[in-house]
Amino acid sequence: MEETFVPFRGIKNDLKGRLLCYKQDWTGGFSAGIRILAPTTYIFFASAIPVISFGEQLERSTDGSLTAVQTLASTALCGIIHSLVGGQPLLILGVAEPTVLMYTFMYNFAKDRKDLGHKLFLAWTGWVCVWTALLLFLLAVLGACSIINRFTRVAGELFGLLIAMLFMQQAIRGIVEEFGIPQRENPVQTALQPSWRFGNGMFALVLSFGLLLTALRSRKARSWRYGTGWLRGFIADYGVPLMVLVWTAVSYIPVNDVPRGIPRRLFSPNPWSPGAYSNWTVIKEMVTVPPLYIVGAFIPATMIAVLYYFDHSVASQLAQQKEFNLKKPPSYHYDLLLLGFLVILCGLIGIPPSNGVIPQSPMHTKSLATLKHQLLHNKLVSTARKSISKNSSLSQLYRSMQEAYNEMQTPLVYQRPSTMGLKELKESTIQLASSTGYIDAPVDETIFDVDKEVDELLPVEVKEQRFSNLLQSLMVSGCIAAMPFLKKIPTSVLWGYFAFMAIESLPGNQFWERILLLFTAPSRRYKVLEEYHATFVETVPFKTIAAFTLFQTVYLLVCFGITWIPIAGVLFPLLIMLLVPVRQYLLPKFFKGAHLQDLDAAEYEETPSISYNMTFEDRERQATATQIDDLEILDEMMTRSRGEIRRTQSPKVSSTGDIKASYSPRVLQNAYSPRNNQPRGMAEKGLELKQTASPGPSTLGQSSRG
Amino acid sequence: MEETFVPFRGIKNDLKGRLLCYKQDWTGGFSAGIRILAPTTYIFFASAIPVISFGEQLERSTDGSLTAVQTLASTALCGIIHSLVGGQPLLILGVAEPTVLMYTFMYNFAKDRKDLGHKLFLAWTGWVCVWTALLLFLLAVLGACSIINRFTRVAGELFGLLIAMLFMQQAIRGIVEEFGIPQRENPVQTALQPSWRFGNGMFALVLSFGLLLTALRSRKARSWRYGTGWLRGFIADYGVPLMVLVWTAVSYIPVNDVPRGIPRRLFSPNPWSPGAYSNWTVIKEMVTVPPLYIVGAFIPATMIAVLYYFDHSVASQLAQQKEFNLKKPPSYHYDLLLLGFLVILCGLIGIPPSNGVIPQSPMHTKSLATLKHQLLHNKLVSTARKSISKNSSLSQLYRSMQEAYNEMQTPLVYQRPSTMGLKELKESTIQLASSTGYIDAPVDETIFDVDKEVDELLPVEVKEQRFSNLLQSLMVSGCIAAMPFLKKIPTSVLWGYFAFMAIESLPGNQFWERILLLFTAPSRRYKVLEEYHATFVETVPFKTIAAFTLFQTVYLLVCFGITWIPIAGVLFPLLIMLLVPVRQYLLPKFFKGAHLQDLDAAEYEETPSISYNMTFEDRERQATATQIDDLEILDEMMTRSRGEIRRTQSPKVSSTGDIKASYSPRVLQNAYSPRNNQPRGMAEKGLELKQTASPGPSTLGQSSRG
Repeated sequence: MEETFVPFRGIKNDLKGRLLCYKQDWTGGFSAGIRILAPTTYIFFASAIPVISFGEQLERSTDGSLTAVQTLASTALCGIIHSLVGGQPLLILGVAEPTVLMYTFMYNFAKDRKDLGHKLFLAWTGWVCVWTALLLFLLAVLGACSIINRFTRVAGELFGLLIAMLFMQQAIRGIVEEFGIPQRENPVQTALQPSWRFGNGMFALVLSFGLLLTALRSRKARSWRYGTGWLRGFIADYGVPLMVLVWTAVSYIPVNDVPRGIPRRLFSPNPWSPGAYSNWTVIKEMVTVPPLYIVGAFIPATMIAVLYYFDHSVASQLAQQKEFNLKKPPSYHYDLLLLGFLVILCGLIGIPPSNGVIPQSPMHTKSLATLKHQLLHNKLVSTARKSISKNSSLSQLYRSMQEAYNEMQTPLVYQRPSTMGLKELKESTIQLASSTGYIDAPVDETIFDVDKEVDELLPVEVKEQRFSNLLQSLMVSGCIAAMPFLKKIPTSVLWGYFAFMAIESLPGNQFWERILLLFTAPSRRYKVLEEYHATFVETVPFKTIAAFTLFQTVYLLVCFGITWIPIAGVLFPLLIMLLVPVRQYLLPKFFKGAHLQDLDAAEYEETPSISYNMTFEDRERQATATQIDDLEILDEMMTRSRGEIRRTQSPKVSSTGDIKASYSPRVLQNAYSPRNNQPRGMAEKGLELKQTASPGPSTLGQSSRG
Repeated sequence: MEETFVPFRGIKNDLKGRLLCYKQDWTGGFSAGIRILAPTTYIFFASAIPVISFGEQLERSTDGSLTAVQTLASTALCGIIHSLVGGQPLLILGVAEPTVLMYTFMYNFAKDRKDLGHKLFLAWTGWVCVWTALLLFLLAVLGACSIINRFTRVAGELFGLLIAMLFMQQAIRGIVEEFGIPQRENPVQTALQPSWRFGNGMFALVLSFGLLLTALRSRKARSWRYGTGWLRGFIADYGVPLMVLVWTAVSYIPVNDVPRGIPRRLFSPNPWSPGAYSNWTVIKEMVTVPPLYIVGAFIPATMIAVLYYFDHSVASQLAQQKEFNLKKPPSYHYDLLLLGFLVILCGLIGIPPSNGVIPQSPMHTKSLATLKHQLLHNKLVSTARKSISKNSSLSQLYRSMQEAYNEMQTPLVYQRPSTMGLKELKESTIQLASSTGYIDAPVDETIFDVDKEVDELLPVEVKEQRFSNLLQSLMVSGCIAAMPFLKKIPTSVLWGYFAFMAIESLPGNQFWERILLLFTAPSRRYKVLEEYHATFVETVPFKTIAAFTLFQTVYLLVCFGITWIPIAGVLFPLLIMLLVPVRQYLLPKFFKGAHLQDLDAAEYEETPSISYNMTFEDRERQATATQIDDLEILDEMMTRSRGEIRRTQSPKVSSTGDIKASYSPRVLQNAYSPRNNQPRGMAEKGLELKQTASPGPSTLGQSSRG
């Protein structure tokens, strides 16, 4: 994306690109049929559960001004509007933890002012939203999103880890509170005797750890050895919501002697109970806010605008990573403009605004990639089977599969550069086949394993459409009506879910992986090299990695610490934005350019790069050698890599003196011993060949993001 | 072992063999130094904790006649005597679950008889012990243990799984009871209000699952990626007792408002409290037992004799598996004779007798193999380093290492056939070295990785000595005095430990692995072939495996069911012994001989066999290719294999038509595709060569056991 600041140009380009595929966004969604429910329910739960808990959290910290009804309403409303008229439909909107923090800071400020207080709090936030929206309009119109390339990995991942820490903090705090007596309840109840509080706390530990452990297990169901493929797939797709149901059911097992209120369950007014809808008319009270506070609202507004600008763009960026091989264009500028409108709308009806959320947005894209893979797979397999039954040769077979593949592709005017189709892979496979002499003979299933060959042909593709986003937003709005049922979920299950979300967001975060690398015993570091890994592990000396990671960790802890400061905490978004200039101007003074490039590639610095396809094929070859299920590979690729290429062990290990010294000689010796196994050696050779043979333009990773 | 029934011959042979190495049994133990503490404490905990819980269980089911003091006393006493004058010092003695069951059956019978009752129960069991001992003498003298080869895998593993089920049953029952009110306590206590019982139960869930999960994790510490090698080794060696301490400490965290008795802790009288020592004078009351009951005692006595004959021999057999590469002779006959004396002794002082226990006995051998490996490794590495510093050539280096190795070997007159030394492996390695031209050049550490090469040279060896057994028995006796401290352990931690023991005993049990195979999705069965696996997976059709496993499962469930029947349950040992003739005469009518041989090798049937060394080298080669820590490999070999050879993927897969059909064509295709990785191919070739080249006598697995 070019860095242009001509007013409106970015918005115009975005609109042009997205309008071209708007119709297909809907037809594509409908054509997926019933299978669309898997990604939809997955994202619905990931979206609704935190929002409900945030509602509970807000209710406590704003003395009941805002509840789960309002957070759900905001998420549903913004989600529906965004899925209908938004730019990038992969982006998921919701009330996020930073918003909750900002509203808490603002309430703590407002409640102590005589002429504002609890009563005018929502009216005042209305003004904050108005200012925020104006700032967002300004940023969108002036093309602020064209500097999105400066939001490098270092900033995005630090923010991602901060969110994970906030989620985990909430989980721990929630469980600890299960042992205490909730403030706003009647302390004479049986359930609030110390003995029952103890039982409630212990039960909460059981439920939350139960949910956490089983949910983490269920996500890996595809690689289980037991059960049928259908069951494994079902558990992997729907396991997490299923576990919420299971543990909620478990929470009803102890009925004997156990009083109501054990375990503690979700507390929220029903949307039809009195007081729950007082916020909707907040616009009438906005005029009664003293002018000084209307002007003063500009200060939190700038913070929220900075936060949303960053958060919304990074969430969108993460949902459109290079690995996903997207076909439809991005829409950063227009989406920021729309966000401005949504913020005003929410402000005027007195609900907290929603913005693009992490980690739900990348989770959404990932689940749609799984869906698209299933659809393509089924289509090509049936085509291949038909072709085989007609006694076709291998080349005829590939031709018919190519046709079927092309049918499934959307004829788009716009096409992102460097997207990958079936063709290149097909050629490589045919080459292999012709070298073994099979090319013209009739094919049968004994020599041509249809299921497997099709999986090898397919590139990663995403079912890009608006239907799943709309559907999940509608489901969230359904939650408001289903409040009486939601209240059956024990709060402890929610805390377990928070911990689950925090842990699920870690793999693939290189910052996190570098932290782990610091704790890895020197004698075991070679194990990292045996797996997929980012380039820096091989090219950057360990001391430099450690220094960089330490800097980032300290920065993260400072950001996290600031959120604890009562009212000044409102400034934390500034600190995150500050990382962008720090990365651009300060870090190059302390780290070598090449190292910095490997640790945190940025387009504005010159990058030597490697063609993407190569790695993909390498991975496939490796996958073939170890015979993993195709969706397992997809899982692996999606969760473990983020916008950067990972390598299997490569010759570079020995060329960098520093690294050589930091690993045990045993590893190096073995890497070159004749006993080294062959596939790895082949992959290395392939790597070298491709590297010299691809002088084309850089089409890789973060360097071409957006 | 020949099947001879000449009276006393077996005992004489055993004594002759063991006396030759009796002195070395002690000197060897002392020479190990402080390191002996790792296996000792590991076994001490594995031995003491169940015995303490069994004591609590017995106390409840015998209305206080027997307590943890008595079970500990029996375990300590029998353990000390056995380690001093017993035959096989690897065998661990203790009060086992079957003994507890038998005593429960007997108490239920005795308490309702007017002229026996609670008062004369122990005196009556004294008579039972006398009869049992006489039967055991008879069996030992007549050489009944020479038919130990008929106790095939099918019987031993069924018994092992039955024990695991009983352990797990106790764990579950224990946790459920934490929610209820213990019978013999004062129900007016605060801790016994329903609210606190609920809290206690939930706390028990947290503690027991906490212990179970962390203990299972800690056993795998050697393969962790984080932490220093020293820490990982320490956690793997001492992790389980450490976790008992940690979770006991955790149980003290809730002090606020929580009454005494939450969580429930171990209940046992101190050995010096009144009533706890009434049993020691039981011999005086034995004469007052009515003669009818003295004669009647013969019935339970036969059952216990059958049980002990089987249990003691199988525990000993499992502690002396082929894989352990033991150097010192077995001693089945003499140990059974000694057991007879121990049973009389225990009977006369009114404590339940001890016998050889599963899984502690094989756990003991395994931990001593780890110890021996560490000792040999350190010695050879220091020798090699010294040699390198003198600029030796590779052949000189090996010569000095060979000398050092020989020094560490005990010069025994008796040597089991087919034990493995350093030599054969050395030759293969030198061959490799000379082919690469290194043989005569001076060696330095860059080309010769001392640590690794030494690990490759070392065969599995066990530190066979009496010291660890004596020491752990003394520690158990120390437990009796330390009762006030033991009472600080929450009972829920014990239940967690029970579950841990049950789960730890599963890997390596082929019966269990066949059950898992039944639940493995057909499309995933090839994964089993990729790992080490027993021969039957490749040679026996899946349907036959399923039928055999189903038969065994039904048999197991019947055995388990019988233990639930109030008094007739006393007959369950008969059912297990019955498996021996069933295996010998009934099963061959339903299964093909070759299949039966692969599923359950028996010496009395003709066996075609494969040389053992081959597999060992194969494994080493595989281990080299994947670069795992040497003790990890040892862990793997010890836990996953039991008396039978496991293979990596071999050509046999395709030669059996039935198997071919039951695996997906994808697997077979891949096994022969040119993309198949090389080391596996090499291993296969090695396998074939060795198979044709070794016409020597069978020296393999179960076929030469004892």
